[in-house]
Amino acid sequence: MGSENEISPADAHRAPPGKEQQAAGVGILLQIMMLVLSFVLGHVLRRKKIYIIPEASASLLIGLIVGVLANISDTETNIRAWFNFHEEFFFLFLLPPIIFQSGFSLAPKPFFSNFGAIVTFAIFGTFLASIVTGVLVYVGGLVFLMYKLPFVECLMFGALISATDPVTVLSIFQELGTDVNLYALVFGESVLNDAMAISLYRTMSLVRNNPSGQNFFMVVVRFLETFVGSLSTGVGVGFTSALLFKYAGLDIDNLQNLESCLFVLFPYFSYMLSEGLGLSGIVSILFTGIVMKHYAYSNLSQSSQRFVSAFFELISSLAETFIFIYMGFDIAMEKHSWSHVGFIFFSIIFIIIARAANVFSCAYLVNLVRPAHRKIPAKHQKALWYSGLRGAMAFALALQSIHDLPEGHGQTIFTATTAIVVLTVLLIGGSTGNMLEALEVIGGDTHSDSSLASVGPITNYGGNNGYVAPSYEEEEEESSSSGNKIKMKLKELHKSAASFTALDRNYLTPFFTSQNGEEDEEAEPLNSSRSSFTSSRSGFHGQSPYSS
Amino acid sequence: MGSENEISPADAHRAPPGKEQQAAGVGILLQIMMLVLSFVLGHVLRRKKIYIIPEASASLLIGLIVGVLANISDTETNIRAWFNFHEEFFFLFLLPPIIFQSGFSLAPKPFFSNFGAIVTFAIFGTFLASIVTGVLVYVGGLVFLMYKLPFVECLMFGALISATDPVTVLSIFQELGTDVNLYALVFGESVLNDAMAISLYRTMSLVRNNPSGQNFFMVVVRFLETFVGSLSTGVGVGFTSALLFKYAGLDIDNLQNLESCLFVLFPYFSYMLSEGLGLSGIVSILFTGIVMKHYAYSNLSQSSQRFVSAFFELISSLAETFIFIYMGFDIAMEKHSWSHVGFIFFSIIFIIIARAANVFSCAYLVNLVRPAHRKIPAKHQKALWYSGLRGAMAFALALQSIHDLPEGHGQTIFTATTAIVVLTVLLIGGSTGNMLEALEVIGGDTHSDSSLASVGPITNYGGNNGYVAPSYEEEEEESSSSGNKIKMKLKELHKSAASFTALDRNYLTPFFTSQNGEEDEEAEPLNSSRSSFTSSRSGFHGQSPYSS
Repeated sequence: MGSENEISPADAHRAPPGKEQQAAGVGILLQIMMLVLSFVLGHVLRRKKIYIIPEASASLLIGLIVGVLANISDTETNIRAWFNFHEEFFFLFLLPPIIFQSGFSLAPKPFFSNFGAIVTFAIFGTFLASIVTGVLVYVGGLVFLMYKLPFVECLMFGALISATDPVTVLSIFQELGTDVNLYALVFGESVLNDAMAISLYRTMSLVRNNPSGQNFFMVVVRFLETFVGSLSTGVGVGFTSALLFKYAGLDIDNLQNLESCLFVLFPYFSYMLSEGLGLSGIVSILFTGIVMKHYAYSNLSQSSQRFVSAFFELISSLAETFIFIYMGFDIAMEKHSWSHVGFIFFSIIFIIIARAANVFSCAYLVNLVRPAHRKIPAKHQKALWYSGLRGAMAFALALQSIHDLPEGHGQTIFTATTAIVVLTVLLIGGSTGNMLEALEVIGGDTHSDSSLASVGPITNYGGNNGYVAPSYEEEEEESSSSGNKIKMKLKELHKSAASFTALDRNYLTPFFTSQNGEEDEEAEPLNSSRSSFTSSRSGFHGQSPYSS
Repeated sequence: MGSENEISPADAHRAPPGKEQQAAGVGILLQIMMLVLSFVLGHVLRRKKIYIIPEASASLLIGLIVGVLANISDTETNIRAWFNFHEEFFFLFLLPPIIFQSGFSLAPKPFFSNFGAIVTFAIFGTFLASIVTGVLVYVGGLVFLMYKLPFVECLMFGALISATDPVTVLSIFQELGTDVNLYALVFGESVLNDAMAISLYRTMSLVRNNPSGQNFFMVVVRFLETFVGSLSTGVGVGFTSALLFKYAGLDIDNLQNLESCLFVLFPYFSYMLSEGLGLSGIVSILFTGIVMKHYAYSNLSQSSQRFVSAFFELISSLAETFIFIYMGFDIAMEKHSWSHVGFIFFSIIFIIIARAANVFSCAYLVNLVRPAHRKIPAKHQKALWYSGLRGAMAFALALQSIHDLPEGHGQTIFTATTAIVVLTVLLIGGSTGNMLEALEVIGGDTHSDSSLASVGPITNYGGNNGYVAPSYEEEEEESSSSGNKIKMKLKELHKSAASFTALDRNYLTPFFTSQNGEEDEEAEPLNSSRSSFTSSRSGFHGQSPYSS
């Protein structure tokens, strides 16, 4: 312990070999301590049922406090260097496990039964919210209400600020046990809209760098190209892995190390393949996660199944917690331009409006095609509107915008985003519990009498793993009676989702897995993994109220 | 897919945001592909029982080939940047899991019964080998046999080149099933001497930077200070974790996520604490591994036990394979100074001599104190001598020496080390199987008749988990009959190891674990983890021939 001081004299004329490493050691040590503190604090808070400070808020606050202390105490710069939020590190190493885990922990039934609605919210809704925010900010600038940004930059800001955070609210939803359908909507939307926001941001950024020869149509085409390309890549890698694990015969006894190694490498492979092709890694890895869980996972040996679920959960928990700490710390360290408080204030108002435009218009569209007993009730729409807090994705993109945009513009966007992230995480995160109680959407299938009566007949719940199976025959009848054209189109889309379920059962599952398409069989290993390693954090997975 | 080309035109006047990330994507993608290839190739080679190319050689060759291809094909520099061997990355992220896993997977019985010998080989022996190599290289320079280096730099080279690799040979040993005691010696020595070599290297590097006011005595004191400090830190963290897991009550059902998270963070905490204090992280994490396995591990819930063993094994397998690939790639990319072929040639001869000095003199010392039936037989000594191949640690330190030393010196040391690493990994790694057969040390407790008869009475094997329990009473008698002074001293040391076993059983185990000091109880969860996730790579752990 004393040797630290003894070594120091040598530093004067030349940095000795161990010196940077020592700084790195201290930096990483602090990070580990904050991680441990967050985990323990989060645990204690959850135990004591204090929902005002969810784990994400706790991590953010810990990061903020340590950051402020480090600022005051004038820490050495080479230790500080270990805390700067590097977008590259975020996008390459912290984000992939979280998004993969989101896809991997997805309980397919509630997700797919709400698939149409989720896609509407995430893709059309996020697009709408981005445009609305962008236009409002631009108009706000034009009428001297706030700092004036060029139109493309307003759209970039709109895109990055439309990414809602999938971590914080969901952990509370899960803790309190909300309605399954609401949970599926919030979960699906927040995961998919991250992918959407990053794609939009990058597209806008390309438009900005090369404004000539770009028209709106081309932008949309390019965006769709990227999205579809990434989705195909992700699904393709997922199916490849399923076939590999089906036929390579690695599930015999002493090859499980190899099996787990390969399984763990696939998601990352998908992410990097997509990024390498200039597509969106986050979209790919999300779909790789869904496909791998649905097909490849059941081809693993039982012990590997148990291991990989626990592994991905651990890695994503660490990454999630780390992101909030890291963000808190960086917010305290980074220089901000507080000169544009107006910008922050009005952009908060605008994102609330944009979020409302997203949720209520999409809900209206979705309700057009849904049968009466499956319409999204108003209180669910309100909950969805409320739960749009902003997290790490918005922060990381805002940090990137500092490099992408001219000095003042990037700084303003970054400061505004930072403020929005901190406010929404602390305020919305802290009040979600009360909001859910006020809206009476707590207690999915357990107290279904009060909250779910409005959604559908109670008999559909419980027996069928707690979700309403879409009854397509019924819908068809209805659609023929109402001659609305949009409604018809939307219903066709809806039907294609139903035919997907049939396709899955009859062709995909038998082809890609060693099973015969009986889904109950697949559910079993999942159950065993649940009991061995349970999370109360992300996804449906874990002892959530939905596993009935 | 086509969008990659579409995006390119925009790059010309400004690097777009996705561009560096795309390069990173391609770089990491290549790395993952090489990893997968290595795993699969290693698996196939092992299945076909081709011991001429062990997994490490395969990885090294894959890295070399891809590196040469990348050199020829003139890859973009920002993709290449992802392949440069960064010592910082190696020391902070790749090395810790490997060393921890070495300690964690240590079967305590054979290790502790040979503890005296292992420490002698690793500490005294490595010290001796470093000095011998250093002096010979210095003398070689003086008589114009080879490139002339200053004396301190010769000692630095001696230190770094004395680190033997714990991965390659051991995987073959395990595959073929060698004698338990030989395995314990090779394993223990190669793990501990990495720690020793890095400590020596750093000490020498400090001496070099601050030559005034340093005498030999001070250097030894500082070295011991570092070593003892690091050891205490590691053991301290290990014991702390044991107490935490004993009393925190995290082994109940739905806290296992938290439990695993914390368990996984502790080793890294130990490493960084040590580095932050200016001590040796590698020594700390090794002992944290040993202590955590021995005490903390048994306080975990069963499912967490299963998970953490599999987790550490996975992480260390990935890190190991990655290191060899990375090293191969870097060797192909880095510029070398081949002008001093003489230096390479003679240093190879010198390290063979130094290794002989290490092994045979230490074996002589050890045999002085051991009773007749436990002496290290000549063929084990030869096997130990032969198995001293050099790996990633030597490479990483040599790479560091480029920064630490003046231009020509660092380059020469680096090139020589590179050549030695490649030659020893490929030649020694490839011929270990034949060597073991020639020395007739194959088949530990299964064909004990032929190979183990010389070590001890067969009755001691088999029943007692395949290792010879040291019989201290017997020794004491002997020591009183021989009046040799050194022998007496050494025996006292030896006895202290015995009293440690008693201390462990009577005080440490009951205090730090939830058990009552019955070691058989502790062995059980280990067995269950074996069946669930088996490695044939590092450590005693796994379905090795020793689990009888």
